[in-house]
Amino acid sequence: MNNNKNNNKESVSDLSKNKIKWIRSLHHKKTRDELGFFIVEGEKMVNEALIYAENFIELLAYTNDFRHENLSVESYEISAKELDQISLLTTPNKVLAVIRKKKTNSTIQQDNLILALDGIQDPGNLGTIMRIADWYGISDIICSKTTVDWYNPKVVQASMGAIFRVNMHSLELESWLRECKLNIYGALLEGINIYKETLQGTGVLLLGNEGNGISKELLPLISHPISIPRFGGAESLNVSAAAAILVSEFKRIEFQKQK
Amino acid sequence: MNNNKNNNKESVSDLSKNKIKWIRSLHHKKTRDELGFFIVEGEKMVNEALIYAENFIELLAYTNDFRHENLSVESYEISAKELDQISLLTTPNKVLAVIRKKKTNSTIQQDNLILALDGIQDPGNLGTIMRIADWYGISDIICSKTTVDWYNPKVVQASMGAIFRVNMHSLELESWLRECKLNIYGALLEGINIYKETLQGTGVLLLGNEGNGISKELLPLISHPISIPRFGGAESLNVSAAAAILVSEFKRIEFQKQK
Repeated sequence: MNNNKNNNKESVSDLSKNKIKWIRSLHHKKTRDELGFFIVEGEKMVNEALIYAENFIELLAYTNDFRHENLSVESYEISAKELDQISLLTTPNKVLAVIRKKKTNSTIQQDNLILALDGIQDPGNLGTIMRIADWYGISDIICSKTTVDWYNPKVVQASMGAIFRVNMHSLELESWLRECKLNIYGALLEGINIYKETLQGTGVLLLGNEGNGISKELLPLISHPISIPRFGGAESLNVSAAAAILVSEFKRIEFQKQK
Repeated sequence: MNNNKNNNKESVSDLSKNKIKWIRSLHHKKTRDELGFFIVEGEKMVNEALIYAENFIELLAYTNDFRHENLSVESYEISAKELDQISLLTTPNKVLAVIRKKKTNSTIQQDNLILALDGIQDPGNLGTIMRIADWYGISDIICSKTTVDWYNPKVVQASMGAIFRVNMHSLELESWLRECKLNIYGALLEGINIYKETLQGTGVLLLGNEGNGISKELLPLISHPISIPRFGGAESLNVSAAAAILVSEFKRIEFQKQK
């Protein structure tokens, strides 16, 4: 299904004041939620959008140094000054796209590791975790309602295109975990040494908030408390670093088979 | 040796305009380099400084909600408004310390894994890598001259105290690598699958710049090209996520012995 109303229309025209206003309104979560669109910026990310989510692109605005093939989406060539007006980056990078949000009623793939995030607050952390999932072929990330919006522009940029490939779900985490019938691995400071256990296969890897860890209500739902042993003086690891290490441990046996 | 001129002097007094100006000047790398001081902010980080680097604290400025024991460093109780003037945080957090830089002529511990960073640009990445090193008991990180200043306030905050425990060195990376006589493991997109090799023991783990990877000049110096196999669609991993995975692989055998 191609949802794009303006297919095969490449227009080089002025971006109207109304469109500029509309794009700028998407800088805010409230409007993104209401209108169902989000912003992607920069050559690399927009090229990923053109490959993986072309049908969802509502509008493209670019300066004349953006190299591209024929564009089959609604497109505007704009000045650097105009790009600066609509961009969220301190140094705008050639192109900005407005993209329609996907409906996230897709089923969760149970034959793969699933990540569950309980209140991740930092956009950089969420984006990095999405990128880790993308690298390791994880299909689904489940976010608690308290987790930062994955359409936040900083998340989108840090995800480096993962947002187009990993299925994101916003769910009531407690009730979902209660009903999922999968092993629930919780990343804790006191758990089983991950280097002694062989982690592999399916299940849910639950990661907590940067400052407070996993919520008290979710702790009893953890079937396998796991932890990364510490050798030095640090009190904790950054949650995205912990995610990288844990996902790597889950996947290493599977990946020994690869070249 | 106690270098603090104002030892055992707890003064509750006004922070002079000159001191405010001096602290604000340390927001800039050039002044930090010239004067040899840097800034640490927030309750958690300043408490780490009081434990691990008390002799290096030149000045402490705190609002009345900062809970503390008797302070044996030059200290000023200030208003929230004053803290806002000298702070770099959008939400200043109770306390700010000015700390004297350590001389980094310490020797590099060769019986441990050493991290070498070639042009890491993002302060969050450098801070996170320092925190990973700190967690895994790595003593030394060697930064190329092109790597972001580790006294950059964003690096300091992201390091979560690692800056007080991990020895940082700024060196001409190429000549140091040429002369170090250690295994040099380079993190590349095309290298030996880290899950097939057993990584352990000593050597240098070389990590490259976020966009461009390891510099061309350094590539021939790599004795062991290694890579994290990819399964999904991501083009690359964030360098701090890659650092986490690689350091974990180096340490996992050693850490199997731990509880």
